[in-house]
Amino acid sequence: KVLWTLLVTVLGSVSSLPVGDDSICTAEELAKYSITFTGKWSQTAFPKQYPLYRPPAQWSSMLGATHSSDYSMWKKNEYASNGVRDFAEKGEAWVLMKEIEEAGEKIQSVHGIFSAPAISSGTGQTSTELEVHPRHPLVSFVVRIVPSPDWFVGIDSLNLCERDHWMEHVSVDLFPYDAGTDSGFTFSSPNFATIPQDTVTEITCSSPSHPANSFYYPKLKILPPIAQVTLVKIKKSQLGLSAPYINLPAKSNEVIDSIS
Amino acid sequence: KVLWTLLVTVLGSVSSLPVGDDSICTAEELAKYSITFTGKWSQTAFPKQYPLYRPPAQWSSMLGATHSSDYSMWKKNEYASNGVRDFAEKGEAWVLMKEIEEAGEKIQSVHGIFSAPAISSGTGQTSTELEVHPRHPLVSFVVRIVPSPDWFVGIDSLNLCERDHWMEHVSVDLFPYDAGTDSGFTFSSPNFATIPQDTVTEITCSSPSHPANSFYYPKLKILPPIAQVTLVKIKKSQLGLSAPYINLPAKSNEVIDSIS
Repeated sequence: KVLWTLLVTVLGSVSSLPVGDDSICTAEELAKYSITFTGKWSQTAFPKQYPLYRPPAQWSSMLGATHSSDYSMWKKNEYASNGVRDFAEKGEAWVLMKEIEEAGEKIQSVHGIFSAPAISSGTGQTSTELEVHPRHPLVSFVVRIVPSPDWFVGIDSLNLCERDHWMEHVSVDLFPYDAGTDSGFTFSSPNFATIPQDTVTEITCSSPSHPANSFYYPKLKILPPIAQVTLVKIKKSQLGLSAPYINLPAKSNEVIDSIS
Repeated sequence: KVLWTLLVTVLGSVSSLPVGDDSICTAEELAKYSITFTGKWSQTAFPKQYPLYRPPAQWSSMLGATHSSDYSMWKKNEYASNGVRDFAEKGEAWVLMKEIEEAGEKIQSVHGIFSAPAISSGTGQTSTELEVHPRHPLVSFVVRIVPSPDWFVGIDSLNLCERDHWMEHVSVDLFPYDAGTDSGFTFSSPNFATIPQDTVTEITCSSPSHPANSFYYPKLKILPPIAQVTLVKIKKSQLGLSAPYINLPAKSNEVIDSIS
């Protein structure tokens, strides 16, 4: 009878093992990543209404967080928070930083916040580091498209944990989103609040379906990626109390794995 | 003879103890700080040529490092590096990030890099976190004044270690500097390279001594601070593997200590 109980217990455990369940992370505690954002917003790839001055095409600072599934920075087809609205419309980060901080304090759903410097052209790069934890393995961030009414690119809850280990390399192509808070149609549209607020929507070459839309390219099937982000796990030997923990990639095209 | 040798050894040690020598830090390993930057660039405080549009007065991302005395990001009366020039002129951070990375790799003089989001007005706030180490107790950063030819505010090698402990609160008033690489005189001057390059100089209400200078206020003795930075040590209880380590100050005027 004891043996039988033991067998049931083992089977019970087996059935609850995280096989194929990405939501349970059994990787070692804490991993550090370098995250590099590459702007691909060139006049060649996006000739229509390409902003050349005051301001020319560029990218805001990157603002992100590592978190659990209890926190969401932004989500397609849902309403943007006040913080995401301020950031997408004006590049103003303070309210979003407070939202992230509050989620960390109140429901412990955030592990850390990260930020990378702005890029002063459409095609440059920026980089920073972030830390994930088995209970906070998700990465989200936003980067505002400048100039634009309320357009941004970003990642929503990318899971860096694959069951029992941390991913080594991840690269993701990024496409433009509309925060749903400003009704401008083109990069340089004047401010005009969307009331009532709309949800976050992806901007494609055919949607919004209007020739005035800056990303409207009726001859294309899909837009080229306007940016790319690459996360590379920093090796343990590169960490440590005295060693510097900076790890900027030397080149932007050193991508090994890729998800899509 | 053994006792005598011992005595000499002890005395020898005593004479090299870090009494009153700020360059030797015996504080506990690693301390984390929140760093909050507050823009004070208002039209009231700086009415002359205050930039109202395209672009209005604002601040770039903050880019900084924690380091030893073997690294210098920028220094008054010395020549700006290529990285600081790019950042001060265009807010372009990549070259400066690579310089910091290289200093970390080659001579282990950098502990970490940090960055905080840009501020879209002259008077907002931004914040991030940084980590210091007894061998890397110094903090430096730059924030570009936007618009401007090559003007910035920043901190050069602020020591957060006081012999055997880390400072709890530090607040520093910031004043404008000229990177010495662009000869523009006013916020909106067109680009005009300074050849040969000049050194980094402080801009005061009387220097450059010319009425066209945007900060020339002949009736003032000193300029009001155009920005302020506050560093607050994050308590150990706020750290930890699972706890979030975000610690944005609730208000900008919660400053306890102050250096000047």
